[in-house]
Amino acid sequence: MIIQETIKGIREEVKSARRKKRTVGFVPTMGFLHEGHLSLIQAAKAKHDLVVVSIFVNPLQFGPNEDFDRYPRDFERDEQLAKEAGADVLFYPSVTEMYPKEMPMTIHVTRGTDVLCGASRPGHFDGVATVVMKLFQIVQPDEAFFGQKDAQQVAIIANMIEAFNVPIQLNTCPTIREEDGLAKSSRNVYLTAEERQEAPIIYQTLQYGAKRIQAGEKKREIILAEMKERLLSASGRIDYVEVLSYPSLKQPEQLSGRIILAIAYFYQHARLIDNYILEA
Amino acid sequence: MIIQETIKGIREEVKSARRKKRTVGFVPTMGFLHEGHLSLIQAAKAKHDLVVVSIFVNPLQFGPNEDFDRYPRDFERDEQLAKEAGADVLFYPSVTEMYPKEMPMTIHVTRGTDVLCGASRPGHFDGVATVVMKLFQIVQPDEAFFGQKDAQQVAIIANMIEAFNVPIQLNTCPTIREEDGLAKSSRNVYLTAEERQEAPIIYQTLQYGAKRIQAGEKKREIILAEMKERLLSASGRIDYVEVLSYPSLKQPEQLSGRIILAIAYFYQHARLIDNYILEA
Repeated sequence: MIIQETIKGIREEVKSARRKKRTVGFVPTMGFLHEGHLSLIQAAKAKHDLVVVSIFVNPLQFGPNEDFDRYPRDFERDEQLAKEAGADVLFYPSVTEMYPKEMPMTIHVTRGTDVLCGASRPGHFDGVATVVMKLFQIVQPDEAFFGQKDAQQVAIIANMIEAFNVPIQLNTCPTIREEDGLAKSSRNVYLTAEERQEAPIIYQTLQYGAKRIQAGEKKREIILAEMKERLLSASGRIDYVEVLSYPSLKQPEQLSGRIILAIAYFYQHARLIDNYILEA
Repeated sequence: MIIQETIKGIREEVKSARRKKRTVGFVPTMGFLHEGHLSLIQAAKAKHDLVVVSIFVNPLQFGPNEDFDRYPRDFERDEQLAKEAGADVLFYPSVTEMYPKEMPMTIHVTRGTDVLCGASRPGHFDGVATVVMKLFQIVQPDEAFFGQKDAQQVAIIANMIEAFNVPIQLNTCPTIREEDGLAKSSRNVYLTAEERQEAPIIYQTLQYGAKRIQAGEKKREIILAEMKERLLSASGRIDYVEVLSYPSLKQPEQLSGRIILAIAYFYQHARLIDNYILEA
């Protein structure tokens, strides 16, 4: 596996692969890789000749009081894991390489950001869309791989690709979970032992809501109330519990069609998110 | 010359050229072509195997009280002129082809828009950057050609290419003028006979300011006052007269280095712009 820290370097890798008629799969990450990321790398490797993984903790998508500085980083471990999962090239740029000066413009997301994580993280998805557009232009892959765990991010990247006619396929891969159901996340390391033991309640609550819908309960308010009720026994704090149409992210009174159940939950040092998509 | 009205169609043209190892030059326009556009097409043809010209009057870059509906259009004339100038493919999409639904996000320009045309046309450069990003993603040329007449537009496209790492070269071509010095513009057709006769005063005022700087006058305020004074005899209305550092578009008290002199001037049915760049 080759490591490239510069835009020029990664472009040369991709260009060289293109000359040999190789296809390129791309997995953008913020590092501190877990099995969720590795499943994306494996999915990319199964379909493409060259797999590029980027590791870049993007300051633009963190709010002033969020965890940019203390976001977990472990490059040597990531390097090992990415290589084992099948990455051919690791793109590992510095903040200065990606943002040599203040950005004179950004992508501003005007739809689909007033709910879920967008509501509590203003500007977050502008930062995500901006860095992903940059990475797409730098790497120019055939296909990019994202995890369904970040459902709103996936919806916004899909919108971005469509809105700007970006010539890249989007591949959304299923959420990878611990054995007890907790969604894998780089932020899980921040949980205390007690919180870690309790945290599967997030996914259990999503499963419960999904079962209630499948059993015939179609009133959004009732599902929301029952899910919140179940979360009351946990020791953290609800950021949101949501039931929305998907991917439009609207709030229908009566649930029908494709539905996303989503939770964001604050523990002491970590905000965890998870979601469940089903046909109502 | 081939005409393509769909994104799919233009992409196939470019893809087919790529397979034959042909390079691609791109000239985005809003149509109603004049010699300025034709010089861009010729410059593209001199350097590239395949020249794509787009004609699209972009609603996103017109304000609510601006001239989108009455912006001049003459496709058959444009077709003839583009062909004669050397265009190989004309991309002529409908508004629905470019914007099948409301844009869920746009590029928002945060720097370089508080002066010149940005000050009097809020949102204009967001619309320009957004449509140019779309066109770049659709056509994926090696090099794109723009006219220096729209100096602020060129500066913002240059910033966009840099900010988002768009893999496209930018080529800025000199302003083409009538024999009496008036910059060629699609909007010149709106001038009355008297206005048309008078309009060269815009370029003469720019030339005058440039000469005064070259003769040693380095105070910005004095140059501005003298230029405004000269425009007083004309029958229209000043939108702005500006002297700025270029390309940073700052307002230095003392002029030095690269400087842009710029004017926007309202006649009854047309707002004309022009500029002059020099070393102070």
